[in-house]
Amino acid sequence: MLEALKKEVYEANMLLPKYGLVTFTWGNVSGIDREKGLFVIKPSGVDYDKLKAEDMVVMDLDGNKVEGEYNPSSDTATHLELYKAFPDMGGIVHTHSEWATSWAQAGRGIPCYGTTHADYMYGEIPCVRNLTREEIEEAYEKNTGLLIAEHFKGKEYMAMPAVLCKNHGPFTWGSNADEAVHNAVVLEEVAKMAARCELINPQVRPAPQDLQDKHYYRKHGANAYYGQKK
Amino acid sequence: MLEALKKEVYEANMLLPKYGLVTFTWGNVSGIDREKGLFVIKPSGVDYDKLKAEDMVVMDLDGNKVEGEYNPSSDTATHLELYKAFPDMGGIVHTHSEWATSWAQAGRGIPCYGTTHADYMYGEIPCVRNLTREEIEEAYEKNTGLLIAEHFKGKEYMAMPAVLCKNHGPFTWGSNADEAVHNAVVLEEVAKMAARCELINPQVRPAPQDLQDKHYYRKHGANAYYGQKK
Amino acid sequence: MLEALKKEVYEANMLLPKYGLVTFTWGNVSGIDREKGLFVIKPSGVDYDKLKAEDMVVMDLDGNKVEGEYNPSSDTATHLELYKAFPDMGGIVHTHSEWATSWAQAGRGIPCYGTTHADYMYGEIPCVRNLTREEIEEAYEKNTGLLIAEHFKGKEYMAMPAVLCKNHGPFTWGSNADEAVHNAVVLEEVAKMAARCELINPQVRPAPQDLQDKHYYRKHGANAYYGQKK
Amino acid sequence: MLEALKKEVYEANMLLPKYGLVTFTWGNVSGIDREKGLFVIKPSGVDYDKLKAEDMVVMDLDGNKVEGEYNPSSDTATHLELYKAFPDMGGIVHTHSEWATSWAQAGRGIPCYGTTHADYMYGEIPCVRNLTREEIEEAYEKNTGLLIAEHFKGKEYMAMPAVLCKNHGPFTWGSNADEAVHNAVVLEEVAKMAARCELINPQVRPAPQDLQDKHYYRKHGANAYYGQKK
Repeated sequence: MLEALKKEVYEANMLLPKYGLVTFTWGNVSGIDREKGLFVIKPSGVDYDKLKAEDMVVMDLDGNKVEGEYNPSSDTATHLELYKAFPDMGGIVHTHSEWATSWAQAGRGIPCYGTTHADYMYGEIPCVRNLTREEIEEAYEKNTGLLIAEHFKGKEYMAMPAVLCKNHGPFTWGSNADEAVHNAVVLEEVAKMAARCELINPQVRPAPQDLQDKHYYRKHGANAYYGQKK
Repeated sequence: MLEALKKEVYEANMLLPKYGLVTFTWGNVSGIDREKGLFVIKPSGVDYDKLKAEDMVVMDLDGNKVEGEYNPSSDTATHLELYKAFPDMGGIVHTHSEWATSWAQAGRGIPCYGTTHADYMYGEIPCVRNLTREEIEEAYEKNTGLLIAEHFKGKEYMAMPAVLCKNHGPFTWGSNADEAVHNAVVLEEVAKMAARCELINPQVRPAPQDLQDKHYYRKHGANAYYGQKK
Repeated sequence: MLEALKKEVYEANMLLPKYGLVTFTWGNVSGIDREKGLFVIKPSGVDYDKLKAEDMVVMDLDGNKVEGEYNPSSDTATHLELYKAFPDMGGIVHTHSEWATSWAQAGRGIPCYGTTHADYMYGEIPCVRNLTREEIEEAYEKNTGLLIAEHFKGKEYMAMPAVLCKNHGPFTWGSNADEAVHNAVVLEEVAKMAARCELINPQVRPAPQDLQDKHYYRKHGANAYYGQKK
Repeated sequence: MLEALKKEVYEANMLLPKYGLVTFTWGNVSGIDREKGLFVIKPSGVDYDKLKAEDMVVMDLDGNKVEGEYNPSSDTATHLELYKAFPDMGGIVHTHSEWATSWAQAGRGIPCYGTTHADYMYGEIPCVRNLTREEIEEAYEKNTGLLIAEHFKGKEYMAMPAVLCKNHGPFTWGSNADEAVHNAVVLEEVAKMAARCELINPQVRPAPQDLQDKHYYRKHGANAYYGQKK
């Protein structure tokens, strides 16, 4: 079942090592079929160089495994809560990519210092708080998803397709699995350049709002003119 | 038309991923035929691994597309203004290469700390100001070109073939597209070493002017003796 | 003799250049056969691209060479002391990997700033003191092993499978040679992200203990649920 | 003539791009035949991927080109003065490798923070002063060699086979061209880790002298025991 989506999610997973976003098995990508109410996710702890499209695990939105030989990613409950809260999310990525994770460990959101950031993400990339002991003990992965959902409630979450979880690492999303990986790559580049730019100028301020708007809207929305008409 | 120039510009574009200067489609190279008054530029948002020489777009100096299936780079108006202002520019490059962009985001010019810099670029690599809201709204890309042109007016612009645009990234140029890419590589190396050298010695001063002169002029001008006679 | 172990140790050694943990011959891996009381280690100063499984040297736990054409690694006496002190160690790695070595040179243990660290190593990665002049002169490599043994005496050494030796570099271990290399890779990633995270936020504090516990125990011990049942 | 030495020097030159020590043509290696009083050096400004063994240039110790189609490296006069001053040097390397050059630009010698450094280089790697305007104008490359020679006069120059020239970059040497490149790689690793270690601990002190001695002398001199007997 869902052979096309499995292949798409498999290929999106394989982009993580290609772009240098994972060490060992430290990452996972999922994608959802909204009509059927099912999502497909990487199995837990399986090496990327042994992964096959048919190893992908099919889950329903109640958290039941519908198909698959393996256990799903240990972060499955986080993906699930995000899919339930945000209907426009078509794909989700979690990694421990090194620069984004360094910001998450530092407990800071990433200010928008330039157009590379503004081209894809509108405003500061948020860093959400630690879960409490009770939240961790009750349901760590699920509550991680609920915390992110709480932060983005009522916000334009597709205009800020990334979040840092304090002392943990990033999640990114997109309209499908491939776009979610694309945003994970953008996040890593932006995180790297923001850290270096603060070293070069400790007094640096975010880019002017007018410039941020210009770059975001030349790539997104009704008046976008970047790229080719589709 | 302009098949040789298209090939040259295509090959120069393909050097950007080779030298690690671009992620996704974040860069573009152009080259000009001064006699015909036409320039050739990368199409907007087309992946490097799908790019072909025949995809290059031909533009005239009034900003009209003369030939090409695709839309030209969204930065075309910047290239255009530079070609109009500076008759010795034969090729222009824009990237978001990570170290040069970090300096641009930091809003600082790059001091000349050593001979690697002085071998190619004479003096501090400038960082030009942000555009105003009015300049952005009126014609962002064109006004970016005019701002750079204003900075270099009356200066030896071929002796400083690079500029940083604040909160955005670098442009470089050369006598042709290949040389412009060469200078983009130099800029990235120089930006990286300047940042690190300030970390190693926060009180570092620019290299002595005599040393800068020696290195610049052993590679450039009538008395140059680096390399082989051509 | 010990052909299977030699092959395993050889392959673990070859992972060091694969993961970018060694320059030239600056690293060595060993593995032990507890039943026979013999361990197998890389020969000293032999290039990785010339190394063969049959070049591995077999040692007994009194420090005698039992088989092998070459001299064993100059760090053999350190491995030996660790195997004698810690019965659960099945493999040991020494490298000069760049980030872990930078922390060792800095003389600091690596605080646990996030879940990447907590997934594998429980608490702060320790940095042991310099040997005294007398300890160096008497038996440098042996005393290095004894110093590490002293530090971990009575501690859960398999829950902290890494140590930094001040002004020198790291040792890691695991239940076999392959797992010891796995931990060397983890250490390097963790060391890199900890250094960067301190640059991004000089006031950063270690991750909350509850979060550290959650991540360590979802991968280790009776209630682990990461990965596939074995 | 000198076909074997040309091949050796050519191969040593080709190690520079292999080890990531050069961008474009920013480096050169030479090697000397002491009996004949001739040395062989890379031609100036020739791309590494077009270089051939027969392109190497043969020079005598008076600075005359004895054989070769191309001009020798623009740094030839520096190599020449070093060969004249130091009879044990068999090969010399100059690069703009990024970390060593960052220290040179910062105008600081590299303290010995650990055993990676002490294994190859005894003590702090020196950074020599800028040349004066007069020295630059009179004979830049020759006076660079004389300045280095002055610094090492009466010192054990084979125990410190590296120097940084302020605002310029490093030279390294060895008993032959290959060993000189080996030392250039060591220098780059040591420079990188020293810079990072100062970031991790701004109060870091050099490694204890006893430890430096132990590591240097376990690899060098009559009592060395690292590696295999030759």
